[in-house]
Amino acid sequence: MKPRLSTEEYAAGIASGDRVVLAKAISLAESNLPEDQKQTAELLAQLKPKTTTIRIGITGVPGVGKSTFIEAFGKHITSLNKKIAILTIDPSSQLTKGSILGDKTRMDELSKNPLAFIRPSASGNTLGGTTGRTRECILLCEAAGYEVIIVETVGVGQSETGVKSLVDFFLLLMLAGAGDELQGIKKGIMEMADAIVITKADGDNVKRAKEAQADYQHALNLFAENTSGWKSKVLTSSALENKGMKEVWEVILDFKDHVTLSGYFELQRKEQRTTAFRESFDQLMKNELNRFTEIQKKSATLEQEVADQKISAHEAAGQLLELYYRTIKKT
Amino acid sequence: MKPRLSTEEYAAGIASGDRVVLAKAISLAESNLPEDQKQTAELLAQLKPKTTTIRIGITGVPGVGKSTFIEAFGKHITSLNKKIAILTIDPSSQLTKGSILGDKTRMDELSKNPLAFIRPSASGNTLGGTTGRTRECILLCEAAGYEVIIVETVGVGQSETGVKSLVDFFLLLMLAGAGDELQGIKKGIMEMADAIVITKADGDNVKRAKEAQADYQHALNLFAENTSGWKSKVLTSSALENKGMKEVWEVILDFKDHVTLSGYFELQRKEQRTTAFRESFDQLMKNELNRFTEIQKKSATLEQEVADQKISAHEAAGQLLELYYRTIKKT
Repeated sequence: MKPRLSTEEYAAGIASGDRVVLAKAISLAESNLPEDQKQTAELLAQLKPKTTTIRIGITGVPGVGKSTFIEAFGKHITSLNKKIAILTIDPSSQLTKGSILGDKTRMDELSKNPLAFIRPSASGNTLGGTTGRTRECILLCEAAGYEVIIVETVGVGQSETGVKSLVDFFLLLMLAGAGDELQGIKKGIMEMADAIVITKADGDNVKRAKEAQADYQHALNLFAENTSGWKSKVLTSSALENKGMKEVWEVILDFKDHVTLSGYFELQRKEQRTTAFRESFDQLMKNELNRFTEIQKKSATLEQEVADQKISAHEAAGQLLELYYRTIKKT
Repeated sequence: MKPRLSTEEYAAGIASGDRVVLAKAISLAESNLPEDQKQTAELLAQLKPKTTTIRIGITGVPGVGKSTFIEAFGKHITSLNKKIAILTIDPSSQLTKGSILGDKTRMDELSKNPLAFIRPSASGNTLGGTTGRTRECILLCEAAGYEVIIVETVGVGQSETGVKSLVDFFLLLMLAGAGDELQGIKKGIMEMADAIVITKADGDNVKRAKEAQADYQHALNLFAENTSGWKSKVLTSSALENKGMKEVWEVILDFKDHVTLSGYFELQRKEQRTTAFRESFDQLMKNELNRFTEIQKKSATLEQEVADQKISAHEAAGQLLELYYRTIKKT
């Protein structure tokens, strides 16, 4: 094993855009070792934060063509001579199960592009939570000069809320289909989207995609405006025919202009940072509670008693807090 | 001041359906005094939980005619010789500001009906949180023989998620209107609804209400099914012409049959209880943190530093936890 890099070596490598050092720094940020966490904190403190970047969350059901879309979109971005980083978030598994099969072919072309940096899933099994780690990875990529950051979710329904708190712009990929179009899309996800893109709008599918576009635009118009004052857009795309990528990027740029002008862009980032602080603290507290097996056992017992209506929720909470205090004071 | 009732007196009075004792017990549950909280816990432990009740959350923007709808609906329920309790939840104010003006005329007729029990807002300023207290009030009303429990939210957007965790069935009242129908309805609320009722479907408004009904039903069909497997329904009603109440009640009964058969009814109630336990514990922890001004000050400073990117969220959380431990050990 090679000797570990110093924080200064990490910082210099990242600042110069060294991909190997960036990859190592991300591993450091994802590590559960206390010394690695400490060094990550030091490193982040040394790096200059960038505000000229755009962070884009992308989600959609399996089969919607997420990787294909991101590869086509990434190629459009790199064709504009912009650097793009693609991070995957997966709270459910150590390894991205969904991508094991397709690992070699996944975004094959894009991964060879020197302007693109692709990094598979941060593990869900990390102290501090997946979103906390992904946030640090975003900051590292930005410090390495990546202007467009994609945060891709694996699966639908578990991680979107987390991703929403990490990004500036949230993109939902949808399939045009007869009837029940949103099968598998959890309620509330559509409302989070700043844009919906109907994928695979090619060949015989174009007409259906256009119909779905009109349907979703109508449905979105029924909702109130986003907090940002931005009206969500619906677009169509075809990765196969390389169509729609320019339009998607232009909508994102429109969005950025809109929210930069209104001040919402910086406001949202500030809020995301303070939310991250509170979440991080809550997570640390939970980790602490789990350190004590006595508390874990009592908590499980109380939960069962509450479920079975043997004790009120309030009463049970009080008992658990008492035990927690007694335990901490003993340490 | 009268001597306080013993827990046994409370229990007996509630079991016999004594409204005065029930009202007193609710005040006890809403009190912040430790001895009152203790007695509430004892009382709840003595009361037999009822499972044959239905808890209905009702929300809608101001002007939608919530009180009028609830009064007409309540009259329908009491006409079936069923007892109905109406609780109001308002996390934002000590007193229900919205109802001060209309206090005397609010549900005037229904309030005189011996089968109906109407109780204004639990204060948002209670230890343990509003939903925790409302949960206890629901249990007290059920123990007093009320089969239909209405939990009404004041205002829209703050309390719906809380209410959803208290009820079996969530009803959203909407106005038919030209164009942007959901003005003021926060994103995600529509998705939570088990049914939407378009109010004021009378006179000239009938046609528009029918159109809105079709529109919303179409929009709802775009979403995936509820976890319960229930397909949300859209209805119209007129409190003025006393129309639609029977239909709303029948939809609720259909829902109850559906979820009872599938086991979801009891499952959801169990989950709500364990969620209440965890929330109650989190709330107690937060109250504890706020006891120490040193921690409050440090937390505010760290939050500002995180917002200004002077320190990472993770690092700040670690510092706060350290201070918390040092503080507790000193007590």
